Amino acid sequence: MTLTHTQELFRTAGDGDRRALGELISRVENDRRESAALLAGMCGDVDGFTVGIVGAPGVGKSTLVGALLGILATERPRVGVLAIDPTSPISGGAFLGDLIRMQAYSGQPNVFIRSMATRGHQGGLSQSTPEIVEVLRALKFDPLIVETSGAGQVDVEVRDVADTVVVVVVPGWGDSIQVAKAGLLEVADIFVVNKADQPDVLAAVRDLERMLGYSRNDKKKRVPKIVLTAAASGTGIRDLWTEVLAHQAYLASTGERIERRRRQLATIIKRMALADLEPAWSDGALVELADHVLGRKLKLADAVAKAKDVVGKLL
Amino acid sequence: MTLTHTQELFRTAGDGDRRALGELISRVENDRRESAALLAGMCGDVDGFTVGIVGAPGVGKSTLVGALLGILATERPRVGVLAIDPTSPISGGAFLGDLIRMQAYSGQPNVFIRSMATRGHQGGLSQSTPEIVEVLRALKFDPLIVETSGAGQVDVEVRDVADTVVVVVVPGWGDSIQVAKAGLLEVADIFVVNKADQPDVLAAVRDLERMLGYSRNDKKKRVPKIVLTAAASGTGIRDLWTEVLAHQAYLASTGERIERRRRQLATIIKRMALADLEPAWSDGALVELADHVLGRKLKLADAVAKAKDVVGKLL
Repeated sequence: MTLTHTQELFRTAGDGDRRALGELISRVENDRRESAALLAGMCGDVDGFTVGIVGAPGVGKSTLVGALLGILATERPRVGVLAIDPTSPISGGAFLGDLIRMQAYSGQPNVFIRSMATRGHQGGLSQSTPEIVEVLRALKFDPLIVETSGAGQVDVEVRDVADTVVVVVVPGWGDSIQVAKAGLLEVADIFVVNKADQPDVLAAVRDLERMLGYSRNDKKKRVPKIVLTAAASGTGIRDLWTEVLAHQAYLASTGERIERRRRQLATIIKRMALADLEPAWSDGALVELADHVLGRKLKLADAVAKAKDVVGKLL
Repeated sequence: MTLTHTQELFRTAGDGDRRALGELISRVENDRRESAALLAGMCGDVDGFTVGIVGAPGVGKSTLVGALLGILATERPRVGVLAIDPTSPISGGAFLGDLIRMQAYSGQPNVFIRSMATRGHQGGLSQSTPEIVEVLRALKFDPLIVETSGAGQVDVEVRDVADTVVVVVVPGWGDSIQVAKAGLLEVADIFVVNKADQPDVLAAVRDLERMLGYSRNDKKKRVPKIVLTAAASGTGIRDLWTEVLAHQAYLASTGERIERRRRQLATIIKRMALADLEPAWSDGALVELADHVLGRKLKLADAVAKAKDVVGKLL
């Protein structure tokens, strides 16, 4: 059996070839067919560990990731960072600043950092993030850190790829009501109050604690830990990592780890199946149907039936 | 021909019965079958006008909407507000505060205000927002204001329902880079700098203007207007409404209005078709497939094929 070029890249990347890894990720990101073919034979790796770092713009997520790399680069054999940035209207790509903040570690052979744009996808994650995470898991990156620059409910998506979700806030960002409004309360396994050298940090912590107390409808559910950091000076970073490892142990001991993996894979299966049917939802086809509806040639129900006809032809 | 109860509610709501309207919206929100049956015979209303109001939590969107109602309640025959809030972990529903801020107008017979929770949907809009907007358009609400409490990229979704998108920021919220990072630059037809009585308002405007200048890759594309408001005192609200009307006129004169309507209806068609196939993506079915994959009984490709088999049975 001969390997396809993508499978060959996967093998070479597994041997530690960073250039092959970079090319591999680009393929998974840009070529859905190649991505699907590569994932087709996989069964989902359960060994690796993915940490999501989410929060509003400006709370210092990239600085925090950089500080974490200061620990991980010396303690872990293979560390990955996916930094997901909205497309910049200026550069047409990811924001350079975030990369610059992390680049101190990008030269290390065991650290792989990749910055990706969101490309107008309606979520905080890049269109192909779940597939890329799955491939990096299979390549034994552990941990893999997924940083999303988005703010708000969008970050709920991070649950689809991360085992442990770290929500970063800062004093003065707003009170806990804002955290709740942004939908971050439900996804947080750990809260980081960053820039903890600023005033009002204790008020911010009390406020979070009160909110976490209120929301404990389910008494069996684990209450998220709160960690104080000042990432720019490295303060609290070791504490944060210790809490991440504690959460990892919690997931393993309760069976929730395999449950989260199941949900992550369910997402991948759904995405792959939907992607196969994508031509039925192509902009051109749908807009043409919509045009007939607006022109009173079709009712909405007729247009829906026609879209489903296309699905049938794709099966 | 006898009308179903939902169709009857639609007719009565059209006659101005607010209680019927409330019940109708609840049906569209909660009962997908009833919603699809009601929409089935429609062809998409092109007369109404929908204004999206988006921005980060805390920028004063609800106050702004309340102030707009001060104008619209006296000038327009039928005005609607959909305020979309993330589910509160405390109340299990929409945040009361937003309603309280607007309730001064909710007693007026020509003003209909509805607050909805997002219910964990991975977007800033409630699961059924596009369908509800379509029904309210058909009921001749004009304007219909859709306020989303989300922050960040999530609000890009608002384009799927709104003709004019107003992005609200405040001085000190962050610089224009944050606006760009949140993906709001691309969706804004009008920028509001609210709380313009605060310091640094001119710096915020200059910053926005610079960013808008940078992003003009497409010279033909309209540059969003910037309006200063202090919604709490009513300052600038008339200017804002004038700009909304100017944008409405712009859309009509350039043909972009019908183009946006086409895209909105395309979204509805896609959502209705996908909803019909939803059982193939049910959590239970997918998680079971994922379990087989993790147990090495299926490869990912096999699981995807099985999910598509279910789609075939639903067509």
